[in-house]
Amino acid sequence: MRCGAYPEVTTVRVALGQFNAVVGDLAGNCRKMRELWAQAVQSDVDLLAFPELAVCGYPPEDLLHKRYFLDDCRLAVDKLAADCPDKTMVVGLPESSAGQTYNSVGVLKDGQITTTYRKGMLPNFGVFDERRYFRPGSEPVLLELNDVRVVLTICLDIWNIEWLGDFLRDVGRIDLVLNVSASPFHLGKIKRREEVVSDCAREFECAVAYCNLVGGQDELVFDGRSMFADSTGTIITTAEAFDEHLLIADVIPRDDGKVKVRPMQPPAKQPIDRVSEVHGALVLGTRDYARKNGFKKVLLGVSGGIDSAVTAAIAVAALGEQNVTCLTMPSKFNSPDTVKDAQQLAENLGAEFLTIPIEPILGRFHEALAMVPGWDDAGIAYENLQARIRGSILMSLSNQLGALVLTTGNKSETSVGYATLYGDTAGGFGVIKDVPKTMVYELAEHINKAAGREIIPAETITRAPSAELRPDQKDADSLPDYDLLDRILAGYVEQDKSALQLIESGLPQQIVRRVIRMVDRNEYKRRLCPPGVRITPKAFGKDRRLPITNHYSPTTHLGDDSP
Amino acid sequence: MRCGAYPEVTTVRVALGQFNAVVGDLAGNCRKMRELWAQAVQSDVDLLAFPELAVCGYPPEDLLHKRYFLDDCRLAVDKLAADCPDKTMVVGLPESSAGQTYNSVGVLKDGQITTTYRKGMLPNFGVFDERRYFRPGSEPVLLELNDVRVVLTICLDIWNIEWLGDFLRDVGRIDLVLNVSASPFHLGKIKRREEVVSDCAREFECAVAYCNLVGGQDELVFDGRSMFADSTGTIITTAEAFDEHLLIADVIPRDDGKVKVRPMQPPAKQPIDRVSEVHGALVLGTRDYARKNGFKKVLLGVSGGIDSAVTAAIAVAALGEQNVTCLTMPSKFNSPDTVKDAQQLAENLGAEFLTIPIEPILGRFHEALAMVPGWDDAGIAYENLQARIRGSILMSLSNQLGALVLTTGNKSETSVGYATLYGDTAGGFGVIKDVPKTMVYELAEHINKAAGREIIPAETITRAPSAELRPDQKDADSLPDYDLLDRILAGYVEQDKSALQLIESGLPQQIVRRVIRMVDRNEYKRRLCPPGVRITPKAFGKDRRLPITNHYSPTTHLGDDSP
Repeated sequence: MRCGAYPEVTTVRVALGQFNAVVGDLAGNCRKMRELWAQAVQSDVDLLAFPELAVCGYPPEDLLHKRYFLDDCRLAVDKLAADCPDKTMVVGLPESSAGQTYNSVGVLKDGQITTTYRKGMLPNFGVFDERRYFRPGSEPVLLELNDVRVVLTICLDIWNIEWLGDFLRDVGRIDLVLNVSASPFHLGKIKRREEVVSDCAREFECAVAYCNLVGGQDELVFDGRSMFADSTGTIITTAEAFDEHLLIADVIPRDDGKVKVRPMQPPAKQPIDRVSEVHGALVLGTRDYARKNGFKKVLLGVSGGIDSAVTAAIAVAALGEQNVTCLTMPSKFNSPDTVKDAQQLAENLGAEFLTIPIEPILGRFHEALAMVPGWDDAGIAYENLQARIRGSILMSLSNQLGALVLTTGNKSETSVGYATLYGDTAGGFGVIKDVPKTMVYELAEHINKAAGREIIPAETITRAPSAELRPDQKDADSLPDYDLLDRILAGYVEQDKSALQLIESGLPQQIVRRVIRMVDRNEYKRRLCPPGVRITPKAFGKDRRLPITNHYSPTTHLGDDSP
Repeated sequence: MRCGAYPEVTTVRVALGQFNAVVGDLAGNCRKMRELWAQAVQSDVDLLAFPELAVCGYPPEDLLHKRYFLDDCRLAVDKLAADCPDKTMVVGLPESSAGQTYNSVGVLKDGQITTTYRKGMLPNFGVFDERRYFRPGSEPVLLELNDVRVVLTICLDIWNIEWLGDFLRDVGRIDLVLNVSASPFHLGKIKRREEVVSDCAREFECAVAYCNLVGGQDELVFDGRSMFADSTGTIITTAEAFDEHLLIADVIPRDDGKVKVRPMQPPAKQPIDRVSEVHGALVLGTRDYARKNGFKKVLLGVSGGIDSAVTAAIAVAALGEQNVTCLTMPSKFNSPDTVKDAQQLAENLGAEFLTIPIEPILGRFHEALAMVPGWDDAGIAYENLQARIRGSILMSLSNQLGALVLTTGNKSETSVGYATLYGDTAGGFGVIKDVPKTMVYELAEHINKAAGREIIPAETITRAPSAELRPDQKDADSLPDYDLLDRILAGYVEQDKSALQLIESGLPQQIVRRVIRMVDRNEYKRRLCPPGVRITPKAFGKDRRLPITNHYSPTTHLGDDSP
């Protein structure tokens, strides 16, 4: 009976099982879901949802081309259904049917999969390739629980509200849109995601329960932050960022057509600003890459410079100081000051510190190479050789000790190729490879501030950056000032702006042209860098796919003086 | 008038401009097309077609996300139309319209683009990502030239004959299907392509003119072999493999409904067997990667083994012996026999030969690393170190001399990770990275036979393979026999078969399981190998996209003893 002063007519208690699914680990993922189910039962939950493709993790990529993988996913979810007969669970799985594969959720009830919903909107842009694997679904699925009408959606389904309105046209009244997602982090993404959830709530005048994945998977970090919105579009409660969380709320349709949301837990702490957000992503991405690939310990070269210092601090936050080894490998070009700073950093972090001077090795290389006419020790080749000796030492110790080598290059360097291929790019994981240099400085300040003491030595932060591969070398000899460089790179790499657009926005013409040439010319080098955490809207990974062999130089929009 | 004993009622002379388009080189590609147009005019051609996306090369990948790139492509084709007013030309371009992008061909006539056809079937599998960029077209385009009715199609459009029949339902009589393609080479592809062209001809009882791209683009090699089929489905004439060719034929509808094809040139020589096909692909792929990326010279390590010998021979075929430097870098583990064979190889090829012993460098590295507790010179790390010293020497000389380093790993090794990351995998291009070891032997025999003399020393072919990184090491100590290994790899990697399927086909259970584990575990290493020529249906490039972080181990189909 719906009358009176908007009484609450019924309630459904919804739990969002935001967990760290591991790609391919069907048994492990199901174990996690069973644990969360047990907790949900204790909290008397009616409906428990897990992230997109929860059974196999996201993205499984070409595992989806293996017939037996699809069979195994189905068997795992069947078993999960049998193991968890009470309550209704919504579990993502790749669903194979009549020779087609769908990105689906199964509705698990009474010990079996009672129905499946197939994702309608398949992203095939940015880091996503879902049309490579899946066919779109075409049928909405409505559940009724305690008279509450729940529509199932998967990730992108709610990002195009016009499409969704059309898709749900014949569904009738909706009290709750449940969305299960695997939405990766980048700076600014949470704001957009909250808008999408709010818009959806307002459009259908219903509550929205948004369940996101959490965890690092190769270059991607899923940041969690599952949430509930009420039918006014207000975000009522948000789960942990960068951590697992079982977020529970009651969804309560009222007689006036509004739908209330009543959270069952105190609010989770959220990152206070963009730098702490990025820090959280880097820590989780590094921890999960190491852990999920079987590494307990990591190893990195520290130079006394800011990039390796920030990388080391993140490694310690991710894995503990007892699992981080800092190695300094000075040559005659390294100043005593930077060597001292490297040591001080390791001491501040409580990490192991080793010193291996490379001078004797460099000397023997030089003698050997001097047999070849044309070799000299005054150019780039000799500089790069020093980086390659260091790379070889790190990789040798990695092999011997079973520790993962972290590389320390930032996005600004990676963009313009200011790195030695198979030298400082040699390693297993590039912690800050998507972090622009200007943000590396912000991270350094953040790390010291958060610790309440000097972790990264002040001199490391204030000294002019140098690769120390020749006497008195400074980054500024080869590169524009990092503030300027990062503005050009944000425009060209992340926003696909043309040289002309950048110049018209006030950036200096000659430098813009030079930077763009450097970016274009170094695609091959970036292709051979290890993976690293993506934190920007466009990293040098699956979201930016440019040919190595590429003769394009713009004519219409170059901003050239010639017509 | 159509009567009598099947008289030929009319004729259209068609030229297929199979040329080596360079990705992004709009001006250069248009220059080539103008040259071919001038030749076609001399041959009194009515219709001249170029390969798919001829103006910008294929695949342009994320260049298509740059608005100004699309504008430049359009301007370039407009200019080409103005430059080539006579005859009808069909020129591939990415077409931007109302915020969407299409994979189109422009019909150029009387100095302008008179109409465009938009590709209807967009491949988004294997190495293709066309749905990332393009919307499908929905309208057929029919040209009439000399009363001959010509339907335009692009690549995949003719590969699904049911779809095409439906798409062309209302077009009426068709005399010629023109298909412009960018169809990359792999072993066995030509046979499938000929079937597709024949089926299309028979289905529509018309001639088919199939214009394919030629040239190397990163990992892909486009093999050309454009062709004409008559309406019985017989392939009448085929253009050069792995080379440019302006293929001309008259297409002649007859009064009985059949369509004849009369070639205007003697037949082009075709590869005689699969090994010569692979050789052609490797030579073109290597030449184009070097040339298009600005390298005249290449440099590689030669060990006296078969992989480096075949790589060196292909490099000489691609770039000339004057542009190839072979470097041997012996340690105490290298036998005098292999060093001698390496020298003999270089001599046979007429290539420069250099020797840089690595023993002194290895000694200093060992001294330095011995400072770290746990280091020893008896394990894998010490073996890998030797490979990394060689990699550093090659990369140093590459930097100093401006030569591209070729890596020499084959597909069998690459599959199971039998290689040193940043050691023998360090370089710019991996010539035989998609060639299974058993085929490397076939290539060696082919190279010697084709030369009519010993290029690759007989001992290099007959000696048991060894990495020579420790005393008396043999590949067979670590790996199964290569015949067996390659059969397992073909099944698991290229055909996505499960362990159970492989075991049921008679392959030994323990070895199958071990090999699969090795393949799965080495994804990270393959991701960091330089690009190389794709010759199989599934290379370790864009056609096999597996996560690095991946805990999947099959349960249903493992062929395990346990239930």
